Amino acid sequence: MKYATLGELMLRLSTPGNQVYVQATSFDVNYGGGEANVAVSLANYGCDACFLSKIPTNDIGQSAVNSLRQYGVDTSRILRGGDRLGIYFLQTGASMRASKVIYDRAHSAIAEAKPEEFDFDELLEGVEWLHISGITPALSANAAEVTKLALMKAKEKGITTSFDLNFRSKLWTKEQAQACMVPLMKYVDYAIGNEEDAQNCLGFHLEGDVTSGKLDVEKYEAMLKALCKQYGFKGAATSLRESKSASWNGWAGALVKDGQFYLSKHYEINPIVDRVGGGDSFSAGLIYGLTHYEDPSDAINFAVAASALKQTIPGDYNHVGLKEVEVLMGGDASGRVQR
Amino acid sequence: MKYATLGELMLRLSTPGNQVYVQATSFDVNYGGGEANVAVSLANYGCDACFLSKIPTNDIGQSAVNSLRQYGVDTSRILRGGDRLGIYFLQTGASMRASKVIYDRAHSAIAEAKPEEFDFDELLEGVEWLHISGITPALSANAAEVTKLALMKAKEKGITTSFDLNFRSKLWTKEQAQACMVPLMKYVDYAIGNEEDAQNCLGFHLEGDVTSGKLDVEKYEAMLKALCKQYGFKGAATSLRESKSASWNGWAGALVKDGQFYLSKHYEINPIVDRVGGGDSFSAGLIYGLTHYEDPSDAINFAVAASALKQTIPGDYNHVGLKEVEVLMGGDASGRVQR
Amino acid sequence: MKYATLGELMLRLSTPGNQVYVQATSFDVNYGGGEANVAVSLANYGCDACFLSKIPTNDIGQSAVNSLRQYGVDTSRILRGGDRLGIYFLQTGASMRASKVIYDRAHSAIAEAKPEEFDFDELLEGVEWLHISGITPALSANAAEVTKLALMKAKEKGITTSFDLNFRSKLWTKEQAQACMVPLMKYVDYAIGNEEDAQNCLGFHLEGDVTSGKLDVEKYEAMLKALCKQYGFKGAATSLRESKSASWNGWAGALVKDGQFYLSKHYEINPIVDRVGGGDSFSAGLIYGLTHYEDPSDAINFAVAASALKQTIPGDYNHVGLKEVEVLMGGDASGRVQR
Amino acid sequence: MKYATLGELMLRLSTPGNQVYVQATSFDVNYGGGEANVAVSLANYGCDACFLSKIPTNDIGQSAVNSLRQYGVDTSRILRGGDRLGIYFLQTGASMRASKVIYDRAHSAIAEAKPEEFDFDELLEGVEWLHISGITPALSANAAEVTKLALMKAKEKGITTSFDLNFRSKLWTKEQAQACMVPLMKYVDYAIGNEEDAQNCLGFHLEGDVTSGKLDVEKYEAMLKALCKQYGFKGAATSLRESKSASWNGWAGALVKDGQFYLSKHYEINPIVDRVGGGDSFSAGLIYGLTHYEDPSDAINFAVAASALKQTIPGDYNHVGLKEVEVLMGGDASGRVQR
Amino acid sequence: MKYATLGELMLRLSTPGNQVYVQATSFDVNYGGGEANVAVSLANYGCDACFLSKIPTNDIGQSAVNSLRQYGVDTSRILRGGDRLGIYFLQTGASMRASKVIYDRAHSAIAEAKPEEFDFDELLEGVEWLHISGITPALSANAAEVTKLALMKAKEKGITTSFDLNFRSKLWTKEQAQACMVPLMKYVDYAIGNEEDAQNCLGFHLEGDVTSGKLDVEKYEAMLKALCKQYGFKGAATSLRESKSASWNGWAGALVKDGQFYLSKHYEINPIVDRVGGGDSFSAGLIYGLTHYEDPSDAINFAVAASALKQTIPGDYNHVGLKEVEVLMGGDASGRVQR
Amino acid sequence: MKYATLGELMLRLSTPGNQVYVQATSFDVNYGGGEANVAVSLANYGCDACFLSKIPTNDIGQSAVNSLRQYGVDTSRILRGGDRLGIYFLQTGASMRASKVIYDRAHSAIAEAKPEEFDFDELLEGVEWLHISGITPALSANAAEVTKLALMKAKEKGITTSFDLNFRSKLWTKEQAQACMVPLMKYVDYAIGNEEDAQNCLGFHLEGDVTSGKLDVEKYEAMLKALCKQYGFKGAATSLRESKSASWNGWAGALVKDGQFYLSKHYEINPIVDRVGGGDSFSAGLIYGLTHYEDPSDAINFAVAASALKQTIPGDYNHVGLKEVEVLMGGDASGRVQR
Repeated sequence: MKYATLGELMLRLSTPGNQVYVQATSFDVNYGGGEANVAVSLANYGCDACFLSKIPTNDIGQSAVNSLRQYGVDTSRILRGGDRLGIYFLQTGASMRASKVIYDRAHSAIAEAKPEEFDFDELLEGVEWLHISGITPALSANAAEVTKLALMKAKEKGITTSFDLNFRSKLWTKEQAQACMVPLMKYVDYAIGNEEDAQNCLGFHLEGDVTSGKLDVEKYEAMLKALCKQYGFKGAATSLRESKSASWNGWAGALVKDGQFYLSKHYEINPIVDRVGGGDSFSAGLIYGLTHYEDPSDAINFAVAASALKQTIPGDYNHVGLKEVEVLMGGDASGRVQR
Repeated sequence: MKYATLGELMLRLSTPGNQVYVQATSFDVNYGGGEANVAVSLANYGCDACFLSKIPTNDIGQSAVNSLRQYGVDTSRILRGGDRLGIYFLQTGASMRASKVIYDRAHSAIAEAKPEEFDFDELLEGVEWLHISGITPALSANAAEVTKLALMKAKEKGITTSFDLNFRSKLWTKEQAQACMVPLMKYVDYAIGNEEDAQNCLGFHLEGDVTSGKLDVEKYEAMLKALCKQYGFKGAATSLRESKSASWNGWAGALVKDGQFYLSKHYEINPIVDRVGGGDSFSAGLIYGLTHYEDPSDAINFAVAASALKQTIPGDYNHVGLKEVEVLMGGDASGRVQR
Repeated sequence: MKYATLGELMLRLSTPGNQVYVQATSFDVNYGGGEANVAVSLANYGCDACFLSKIPTNDIGQSAVNSLRQYGVDTSRILRGGDRLGIYFLQTGASMRASKVIYDRAHSAIAEAKPEEFDFDELLEGVEWLHISGITPALSANAAEVTKLALMKAKEKGITTSFDLNFRSKLWTKEQAQACMVPLMKYVDYAIGNEEDAQNCLGFHLEGDVTSGKLDVEKYEAMLKALCKQYGFKGAATSLRESKSASWNGWAGALVKDGQFYLSKHYEINPIVDRVGGGDSFSAGLIYGLTHYEDPSDAINFAVAASALKQTIPGDYNHVGLKEVEVLMGGDASGRVQR
Repeated sequence: MKYATLGELMLRLSTPGNQVYVQATSFDVNYGGGEANVAVSLANYGCDACFLSKIPTNDIGQSAVNSLRQYGVDTSRILRGGDRLGIYFLQTGASMRASKVIYDRAHSAIAEAKPEEFDFDELLEGVEWLHISGITPALSANAAEVTKLALMKAKEKGITTSFDLNFRSKLWTKEQAQACMVPLMKYVDYAIGNEEDAQNCLGFHLEGDVTSGKLDVEKYEAMLKALCKQYGFKGAATSLRESKSASWNGWAGALVKDGQFYLSKHYEINPIVDRVGGGDSFSAGLIYGLTHYEDPSDAINFAVAASALKQTIPGDYNHVGLKEVEVLMGGDASGRVQR
Repeated sequence: MKYATLGELMLRLSTPGNQVYVQATSFDVNYGGGEANVAVSLANYGCDACFLSKIPTNDIGQSAVNSLRQYGVDTSRILRGGDRLGIYFLQTGASMRASKVIYDRAHSAIAEAKPEEFDFDELLEGVEWLHISGITPALSANAAEVTKLALMKAKEKGITTSFDLNFRSKLWTKEQAQACMVPLMKYVDYAIGNEEDAQNCLGFHLEGDVTSGKLDVEKYEAMLKALCKQYGFKGAATSLRESKSASWNGWAGALVKDGQFYLSKHYEINPIVDRVGGGDSFSAGLIYGLTHYEDPSDAINFAVAASALKQTIPGDYNHVGLKEVEVLMGGDASGRVQR
Repeated sequence: MKYATLGELMLRLSTPGNQVYVQATSFDVNYGGGEANVAVSLANYGCDACFLSKIPTNDIGQSAVNSLRQYGVDTSRILRGGDRLGIYFLQTGASMRASKVIYDRAHSAIAEAKPEEFDFDELLEGVEWLHISGITPALSANAAEVTKLALMKAKEKGITTSFDLNFRSKLWTKEQAQACMVPLMKYVDYAIGNEEDAQNCLGFHLEGDVTSGKLDVEKYEAMLKALCKQYGFKGAATSLRESKSASWNGWAGALVKDGQFYLSKHYEINPIVDRVGGGDSFSAGLIYGLTHYEDPSDAINFAVAASALKQTIPGDYNHVGLKEVEVLMGGDASGRVQR
């Protein structure tokens, strides 16, 4: 089974250790981006995963492509060209000090690519699952059009689609997001998003203070069921993050599939090593789970275990393999040395 | 408003990560010292902060001066000369293993500077707030005399003064400290110090086991009020640290101003990244708070939030800005990524 | 008093920080191995500790020997030669992600050394305590024979012996382990091992789920007393680890000596910096304690405090000295900065 | 005497050691840009140097400003705002492998700043020397206008001006360069540029193969004199680089002042540590020399010695001080340890 | 055109900078091996290159595979399994101090693989060029058999073959080498090797002192022509290295093809960054050249330029691309910054 | 044969790579000092070498002692105590930029040690060769007295003595040096020193410009013979350094023994990695050579080859072994990889 994801891959420049920006005399180099992160996760589980994007031909762009190849992602369908690779800077938080992201992604190759450059008939050849996040259409009007073309073609070809709502306030307003994304939902089979995403991207609302560190499971069940009902999704899922501090989060997930609600196991991630990419590893885990387990409960548990493990690894990409996720799903969170 | 601080700036050499001294093949280089740390904090909040000291002309001394300029401190009034910059070594602890400081600060330029080298009429020109800690008079008899001259001149010029008691047993005995410091208190407007400092530097006593990790707020209120009464301070403040381990501390602060007691919010700092300089960032936060907020409660809450954040950043200096402190004061300790 | 330990010293290659293997572009270099770790600990407490092994003459072997000399271990009785130094790779875990060891130790100099190369009359000259772990006989048939010869000669010379059962499933099966180790027990004065070791190496069984993170003290008392009874040990001890996660363990220890049961203080190690070598530092602490304190309760408390501290330091070796262990034994786990 | 320079300050991201881009897992962080480099050099010689530009308010922009403050440059006249700080990537060459720069500087704050944001009456208050390079007008039409306004105002105020032609083919064509720069020459007192710059920026031509590693001094004398004659420059200078390899260059300089030709001493720079910023340190040295030495021969020798030393130091900035330059000017290139 | 190479891929552990082994507290991690290096070079030139080997399934083996994928090598035909990945340690020399390699490659997966595991009908499917070096048959009797099977099948399928003689005295004696390799020569189209290789592997002899740093071109012409004549090679080539020091080598190459002798340009590599893999990059360049240029003179010049550039880059792999090689072939060795 | 050396061991803090002081955010940690360096060299050649000094008991002092133990030096006779370990900072030069040392060694334990603390009867028990440099008496009046006592006792015990004149202008004037050192010469068997040392320490003079990079061998022969004659030395030697740049030196040595003059081979050290400690490795090589070779020509050639190799290794200590020195003595300076 061939999976494809479509989006932006960025150069990530992060301060080493606990340094803040003004102290840094070097930046750690990683590459990442929502949909690329999903593709790497899938490849790490042994899946045939293909990333679709446009990436410059210079050495920075090539290094980004190489990072995908290194982990087994099919990069043969990536368009090459454009002026620059988008960049984001990351200063990782600790305790009550939050992580701080600075985006420098405007004018990137994918943001400035034209819809006609993408021949989705070819690009989606043989693909059975297409995943996109809400970041992609937010990049530019062109990128929004590209997103739409991809989803339409996917439906035409009978490809299953998943969409991670993922609202980014630095890229657009919620009014812009809703105007773009609501019409796309009819091409989507599985939606992923938390309460803020649902509210900002689709106009849904969920009561409660998301900075309080406490969660109300019942509201999520209601939200997910309502989403499925309104948009005809086959399923909808959300990760459930309790933000106790930058170093300690509770972590779980919930899935509604075919009208049934499934709540995952709950983990305490302490310490968090790198929470960036946590949501993407959840999406990847869910996609893997939905296509490899019969029981939707296993799918959501796989997604949550995989994404909990991701947050103990530096970088956007999730480097855990099947076996490690399954050991954690199976209940062993003891962290005993594997010799 | 121009702030000045007077003291020693040292080269700090710390082992990387969790290494202990005997493992180190490199040392991380930082510069720090009680009053210099206060000046950097104030500059980071946008204040006009000036540091007073004597620093060698060699490249190590110049690097120390540069570190202050980098963060916007006015270094134009620093005397240059002397044989060496004081050094301290730091091995950062973890869990039940305490951090370990080795001082190599004897014979430093500031310790050997002569009182007549300091023309405080010029050095304090335009200054409205002067801050010194109890480390400065402890450096040498000369430094004690310099401290006294600075405080006297400040009073003469109508400059507000703050004094962080800060007892250092490696530098002098409590008898020596009291003989020197008690007479200085009449020049002080705001005193800062915990129970040990008050006891060692001024002869005050507070019951209880400071290594127990528990605090008794009422005793602190009594102590601060008694200090104000005895010495005629406009205010007195203390940070309240619960030392649960080298990696996890409770953190709060208390202030008595104009006879009123103010207790701050309480934070759990877990993990602590670097607690050295925590007290200095508290002093700086208090000075900023007292000169920018009407409500003393805001002042102590600013001081505590600022100094909690400091302890999540490596190095002596506190690199957080106004906005970050205010977000934490405002109640968001969730550590959610700022994008 | 001269102590000797006999075993394998390996090159340890670990990923920096929280990186996983596939991310590593450098490995941190340390040297370690069960019995070598014990020798270093003893040397750090000021004891005359001698390490017995066979190590190649190449620069990697020499670096391993140098690492022992650096910390004061007597390396003059190490045989030199053989093809290679054993290697192990380490990826340190975090939170629910376990540490992952990859062994590449087959065909090492010590594994391929022949029994006749070891003249234990000379090698044990002047030695009063000999320590070996169950890893040594597991290395090869030759190494098992060497272990037996050493223990027999020790008994002949009236040397006290301690044996850390330490089962390694990658090296042999429990059937093989029992066939080899049970007959050795008659030469052993002090046995060290947890429930899994006792079960795998000697056929003992203890109920309960060792991955649950909870401990049942009474069972350990029963086990240790039964071990002493069956094999005539002067004493038997075990560390008690509660594996809450890769970053947080409970830690304690228990000792039966002369029929009496002693339970140590209990510590929360959070965060764990490096748990590899934790058991060896427990053994070393116990040996030190048994030979320096009258009260067996002090011996087990020393062992547990020492090994708790070890787990806050990177590398196999325990770099804490007597004073630091005694401060923790004395009850100060506050982690306050030592200035 | 107050010096000002006007231009772009960029984040420089360079691969460590001899790594090429595709190998890098971290980038060394420096800040640099032609005119900023000149300002830092002047500040390091003890001059009052002021940098004029527009720099974003985010932490990356602040770090750039801090880097100037660290070395004593007056940053108080820098405009703050805009979307991004320009970036350039650097892979340092070795032997016959050339260094490779990738620019990602489009849309930077200074490139997008509007002329009306710059009040040069204020910005040049008290300034006696203004330096700009040909990179600044090449950034954008707006930047070209800003350059012109600055030069015109300088002339109006009687400020001496220097202009480093510095053609950058990635930023504009030689036709564009000439259209812009030729009219600016009437405001320029001292021009700096090699044969390629003169050809591309002003339409001058010099025979010979610049990649041959050999220089023809006579042609340079002719060129410099012709430049002075045609544009009425008080002086014109060029560095003379013999590119033998990426690691080894010959280095000298020539100056025509008041009709006289001065040729500097010649150095072999081997190895070159970092040649980026070499030309800027030449300009800074020349400016310093022209304003501090009577003899123009000393000025060009200072410029050449200073810039030779720069190329032995990593980063764009030249960290050598007056004394080191003067020792080299004085003839000691022996590199004997200074104890 | 599909190229395949067959051999061992090792973990390379090198001391950072100029450190010697006994100083190292970390090792730089690279992966390399003669034929793998050739495959990476070819992939970097845009060729379809496939590597054949057996590599363990553990994370160290996976990292080795990933390093090939990162640079675009087809790894889909690699057998997975076996006990360990071979290791080599490298301490890079400087000036008169030679680099020092320690091999720890015995018992590797490829050395212990059985001939019947390799189905060369499948493994060579679609391949048009097969390259092997003399290291592969030297690994073990099994590996020698595998080498023979590969070459025989290649001839059967009409695949062009190249063979880099590459004698390794640590792996076998020259008698063993000759017994194995002479019979293989009948399957070889292009042989690569210097005078020592020809002597040790095939019994050829060339007068002169190879440590003298001087070369005698005429002898090489004679040797290459004689080799072609005796074994019926289509061509034979050698790199010509003048070992002036560990930091400075002369570098050239010579080729005999169809009876004609071609001598390349000559380069001075100074400094050498990393000469390991230099010969492999020569082989790869020659293969590329022979399959892409009409004129054999271009082929040898491409090989020499490519391998000169390699020696300025750390690691076994050659990361230069077509354009950089062609610029150097074209005569520009000036090392001027490419902006 | 037991060798002893007496002197100061310092903490060396050097900037990484080519950084200058003001750029450094970390310092590389090494330990070194003239006589300690000699002891390490001798231990690396397999000799029984003992270091005599006074070193603090703190962790910095312990790390210094550990560094000696690591390389096999006998540290059992080192006095422990005092306030601080001396420090020196090092910024390594390149090309025409000289290395720059900043000393911070005043008030060190050895400088402040009292003569009566040293019982040379015990400290020199079993010693057959004693080596001291002119740095030791320069440290303080006490240290000068200690030096004298050691030399007198050595003569009394029939111990051969060598003395490296080693003038340090930062520690004393040449008048002070001569007043102290001339009277010591009667206890010295072998003197080592270049023309500047002879001039400053003993009042000898040699014509010529030592910064010119050229040497006049005849003058050295005359100087060495005159030294022997005047002071009755058994031998006198000097290294011959041609300082072409900080990166490239010529290197040779000369010895007069029993009236005969021996000139060594000559080497070009290019690049120099770290020339600090070069002279000490020459002394150590000479001592080794004089006690292991019959022919004085071999002794001086060993000294020069050893010290040439030292300058290719970072740190004060010379880590080369016998075999590497002998290969270079034997004429192979080709730097070919040792596999």
